[in-house]
Amino acid sequence: MKILVINPNTSKRMTEEIRKTAEMVKNPGTELIVTCPKKGPESLESYYEESIATMESLNIIESMQERIDAVVLACYGDPGLYAMKEILKVPVVGIAEASMVMATILGQKFSILVALDKSVSMMENLVLRHGFKDRLSSIRSVEMPVLDLEAKPEETTKKLTEAGKRAIQDGAETIILGCAGLTGFDLKLQKELGIPVIDPVKAGVKLAEALSFMGLTISKRGLYSYPPKMRRD
Amino acid sequence: MKILVINPNTSKRMTEEIRKTAEMVKNPGTELIVTCPKKGPESLESYYEESIATMESLNIIESMQERIDAVVLACYGDPGLYAMKEILKVPVVGIAEASMVMATILGQKFSILVALDKSVSMMENLVLRHGFKDRLSSIRSVEMPVLDLEAKPEETTKKLTEAGKRAIQDGAETIILGCAGLTGFDLKLQKELGIPVIDPVKAGVKLAEALSFMGLTISKRGLYSYPPKMRRD
Amino acid sequence: MKILVINPNTSKRMTEEIRKTAEMVKNPGTELIVTCPKKGPESLESYYEESIATMESLNIIESMQERIDAVVLACYGDPGLYAMKEILKVPVVGIAEASMVMATILGQKFSILVALDKSVSMMENLVLRHGFKDRLSSIRSVEMPVLDLEAKPEETTKKLTEAGKRAIQDGAETIILGCAGLTGFDLKLQKELGIPVIDPVKAGVKLAEALSFMGLTISKRGLYSYPPKMRRD
Amino acid sequence: MKILVINPNTSKRMTEEIRKTAEMVKNPGTELIVTCPKKGPESLESYYEESIATMESLNIIESMQERIDAVVLACYGDPGLYAMKEILKVPVVGIAEASMVMATILGQKFSILVALDKSVSMMENLVLRHGFKDRLSSIRSVEMPVLDLEAKPEETTKKLTEAGKRAIQDGAETIILGCAGLTGFDLKLQKELGIPVIDPVKAGVKLAEALSFMGLTISKRGLYSYPPKMRRD
Amino acid sequence: MKILVINPNTSKRMTEEIRKTAEMVKNPGTELIVTCPKKGPESLESYYEESIATMESLNIIESMQERIDAVVLACYGDPGLYAMKEILKVPVVGIAEASMVMATILGQKFSILVALDKSVSMMENLVLRHGFKDRLSSIRSVEMPVLDLEAKPEETTKKLTEAGKRAIQDGAETIILGCAGLTGFDLKLQKELGIPVIDPVKAGVKLAEALSFMGLTISKRGLYSYPPKMRRD
Amino acid sequence: MKILVINPNTSKRMTEEIRKTAEMVKNPGTELIVTCPKKGPESLESYYEESIATMESLNIIESMQERIDAVVLACYGDPGLYAMKEILKVPVVGIAEASMVMATILGQKFSILVALDKSVSMMENLVLRHGFKDRLSSIRSVEMPVLDLEAKPEETTKKLTEAGKRAIQDGAETIILGCAGLTGFDLKLQKELGIPVIDPVKAGVKLAEALSFMGLTISKRGLYSYPPKMRRD
Repeated sequence: MKILVINPNTSKRMTEEIRKTAEMVKNPGTELIVTCPKKGPESLESYYEESIATMESLNIIESMQERIDAVVLACYGDPGLYAMKEILKVPVVGIAEASMVMATILGQKFSILVALDKSVSMMENLVLRHGFKDRLSSIRSVEMPVLDLEAKPEETTKKLTEAGKRAIQDGAETIILGCAGLTGFDLKLQKELGIPVIDPVKAGVKLAEALSFMGLTISKRGLYSYPPKMRRD
Repeated sequence: MKILVINPNTSKRMTEEIRKTAEMVKNPGTELIVTCPKKGPESLESYYEESIATMESLNIIESMQERIDAVVLACYGDPGLYAMKEILKVPVVGIAEASMVMATILGQKFSILVALDKSVSMMENLVLRHGFKDRLSSIRSVEMPVLDLEAKPEETTKKLTEAGKRAIQDGAETIILGCAGLTGFDLKLQKELGIPVIDPVKAGVKLAEALSFMGLTISKRGLYSYPPKMRRD
Repeated sequence: MKILVINPNTSKRMTEEIRKTAEMVKNPGTELIVTCPKKGPESLESYYEESIATMESLNIIESMQERIDAVVLACYGDPGLYAMKEILKVPVVGIAEASMVMATILGQKFSILVALDKSVSMMENLVLRHGFKDRLSSIRSVEMPVLDLEAKPEETTKKLTEAGKRAIQDGAETIILGCAGLTGFDLKLQKELGIPVIDPVKAGVKLAEALSFMGLTISKRGLYSYPPKMRRD
Repeated sequence: MKILVINPNTSKRMTEEIRKTAEMVKNPGTELIVTCPKKGPESLESYYEESIATMESLNIIESMQERIDAVVLACYGDPGLYAMKEILKVPVVGIAEASMVMATILGQKFSILVALDKSVSMMENLVLRHGFKDRLSSIRSVEMPVLDLEAKPEETTKKLTEAGKRAIQDGAETIILGCAGLTGFDLKLQKELGIPVIDPVKAGVKLAEALSFMGLTISKRGLYSYPPKMRRD
Repeated sequence: MKILVINPNTSKRMTEEIRKTAEMVKNPGTELIVTCPKKGPESLESYYEESIATMESLNIIESMQERIDAVVLACYGDPGLYAMKEILKVPVVGIAEASMVMATILGQKFSILVALDKSVSMMENLVLRHGFKDRLSSIRSVEMPVLDLEAKPEETTKKLTEAGKRAIQDGAETIILGCAGLTGFDLKLQKELGIPVIDPVKAGVKLAEALSFMGLTISKRGLYSYPPKMRRD
Repeated sequence: MKILVINPNTSKRMTEEIRKTAEMVKNPGTELIVTCPKKGPESLESYYEESIATMESLNIIESMQERIDAVVLACYGDPGLYAMKEILKVPVVGIAEASMVMATILGQKFSILVALDKSVSMMENLVLRHGFKDRLSSIRSVEMPVLDLEAKPEETTKKLTEAGKRAIQDGAETIILGCAGLTGFDLKLQKELGIPVIDPVKAGVKLAEALSFMGLTISKRGLYSYPPKMRRD
């Protein structure tokens, strides 16, 4: 099984961290193609940057679609997710939706930790659109630029722990790392906080494997039916 | 007051129709700039095409932002609306959101008429995201490609009337024309059906004028705060 | 275009302030009739008072209905709004609904500033009924009787600024002045707070103008169909 | 215990039927005062008429408030219910809210039978406001003017049975008679349909007795706190 | 009328308190059978214990079903409520649902006081399932084991008063005692707090009496239809 | 990794089918323990039977908890799911919740096919409780007793195809087999209908593997925290 893991920003460092995480949890029989666009924003901290990154990601997907069995969109904003599900038939999984569905199974209320204050509003909007508002406990920011997260791991760990403790006081039963740039911090944080911490990259890879293995596809009826001019079946 | 009305597809014909409609309802003191991208899809019938069109629209907006007092996004899918509200401070109004808020004032339940069967699912998703699901009566398709709508006005009128009658049986108290390509068909259809028919281009222009005239702006706090790298105030 | 702006309480001072605000934002071609009942409560701070005021307002509307193109109901509780939409065909706009729909366009979350603690519960109920609960950030009271608001402008400004700052901490991206008695305080407060502040009287007038100009009416099918004994079309 | 049962319309016949029903189910120790306004609409088939009737009902309540232990508002639209709960401390029960809460205990989904097509929209709005939309199966009309319901009992029974059968096909597990004018038809219809049929007048009386007996009152904190001192011209 | 009041835990003391409360509010003509299982958990503080208690309660109900006119399930978690409504036709009322519907009539927002921190999450889940989330103000715990509540009445009263005051600050307009073990503390607490306090055992008994008296039954169509192998009508 | 797959009814045939399905999709390194209670109902077609089966399942889980890394509850009603998540720390996955979260990733709207008409109401209730009502298209019954499903595969296939076609007309984009007794019919039906068909047993096994592999557990904070020390007579 070949899974394309696409980091829609151009940060090579973040792509490398995503690759490490994905390799760590993939099944032995899974082959991963972890990639990112050559141009576009180096981190996605706004809808504007997400729009640019979406185009670049769609180009990558179109060029590789013959060779892949599933796609993991490795940015917590799920940018361009609808369009990707529309042009492909193989399972496409956003890491935000993957992590949220797992959180709903492990506890009643989840909190999301994000990089920037601005992301708090964006995440709240995302949770609303995904239909999980009744299960959301809070969204807490570590107030660090996305590109600093992997670059300054000690500061990140410290701030994640602080934010996680506030989230627990908010009523969180599970924690989601709400940024692909936070991948790899899950196990340490889980140990620190004593409640499950979900790494969304892991969630995306495992769910994509599961769907593909089960022979399931994106439904080509209704919302994600092929664009009229691209019909291919 | 200068209002940019942007048709995110490249159809000159549809841009012309949008201009006609917008000119018809604008205030005397309003100057309209009605435009469309030079490249990109000629009609937007999928999320994929919306993604491409979003990039083109954002480029236009960026190049014109110094000279405009408000923006009307004249495509019923509201493509790229979040990003546009994020990079601008002047009011940005999507024609879908404008038409829905007007519908909620005129009656309890509204129906939306769309071009294609695929759009039915996309609209349902849009209504859900805009929070108006309890006010939606039904979505009915005329099953014509978007570019045919203006090209074959008689067929369009006939099919709109049929779809509108079905919508009334579904419980519609008002009708929204759910496609910029349907602009200009409102008054005739309203006469035919006997209930209010909302032309979303008109709704967008009038709401943009109103917001701008009132001295209101997009809030630069929270969801639509400027992208971190673009902060300008 | 003739718009009836009806202040359902009997305060002449408040009616005067409403008139000033409405005149300030109306289109040149709009003629305003701003009025209030001769008897009834001088301010509406309860459902009980709203019930009395509704009767008085309905009488005014019935006597003037031949001569008007739209109605603005200038009390933030939208008292009697259903009945008014029912007996008229011309657009009837409540200033609460008008301000809320504008707020949803300018930001994700809005807060409402009200006069009295009791109004906090009444507003929460109103927001719930209008379907905007997911967009509400908070409701904050300045704890002043309605009739003091215009009478003591300095105290009002000071308390509004304090309440507005608390609202921003609650997550507000826009602020709505949740009482017709607060009309005219919008621009100063907006400058103070740095986020959009919506004057609901302005919102009501501009929306009524827009709907009327577009040739739209209250739907006489379904919820707002004429009372059985009054059918007139 | 003295319970005021108020029929807000002026129909003596309907008031008599309401009295009969109320007497039938009251506890032995309960004394009923069943009354209706002297002037106002003879039946309430619109929000406009409800507004007039509200004023008349409030006057009755104010004049009797010293002598009563609970109030039942015997009109299915619950007109003026908020105001009544506000000015009184003794339990005030609307027959619509009473019947809906009983229905939610007896089955998952309920349907409401109403007199007129217009009432279908009004009931849908009422159910939404009372928060029971997820429990509503359908609203079906017998298409008879309210005053005919008691006057033509055979036709009413026949049409109720037909409407009830359609409601069962819609998924109804219980039926609510959605008009005080339908009081007394419950047991016959229940026998006919084989599922529980709730007479809202009975529901209101029994719930008012229960609340009063338990020593409960309307909360005078928050939404239903007393109106601030009334000022009238 | 014979009402079975079933305490699903095995605490004789709590069963006695429930009996006292039920006797205090029942109608003169009502005969109460108040009982509890012989084996099973002595208090229900988890879903696990509720599952065991459900089986014991179902056995009691099955053995007594010929002789009873209604059932009150006297545990605030409503354990096994669906199954009980399914196997019986006479009204079955959970004390949680009974208290919540009464609270919605007396005020806009209610708070629930519970015994243990763990119960806070369980109650939140229960409120969500019963569809009253928009009416919930908060859930506050007295942090005492269930069996201590009746055993240490002074401590309980003190802690309830403290928790009730916090609930009022949260916005509560009414208070519900969210544990059968708190039965009998309502009137004292109501006096202390000045807002209505609902004893759920009382609510359950009065609602069961009312439903039975009205000739209503659990609907045997849809959700609560008899188990296929037990069909009896 | 050892996964306990528990069929809560006593049908050996159905347990065998569940084993076959589970073996088909498990990872090579996964060891399955597929079992069912020795006593209790042979099929679960009511809440009553679910209550009995829950006790038996809990007993099995308690006796095996030292030796397992995850649990799959293989009955579509998710009976006893809360209690199981409460007493265990290893991931516990209900096949209903697993299938629904997968369906939300593959399309906008899903339909569920069930065995009996009674299950339609039970499923609707389940979907509501799991929070997926906005994503549900319809629930369609094949009207066959659960134990006949595997026993008469040709009739089952035929009726599933018919029900699936009706579901597609209802707007389904994906289909869920809403009964463990339907396991194994997915691929054939998927071929027949042309849209994704989700076998919930497969969904449960793959999700349990994923969660366990990621090092995640049920959160022991909040809703699923361990039962306080159990006291039993």
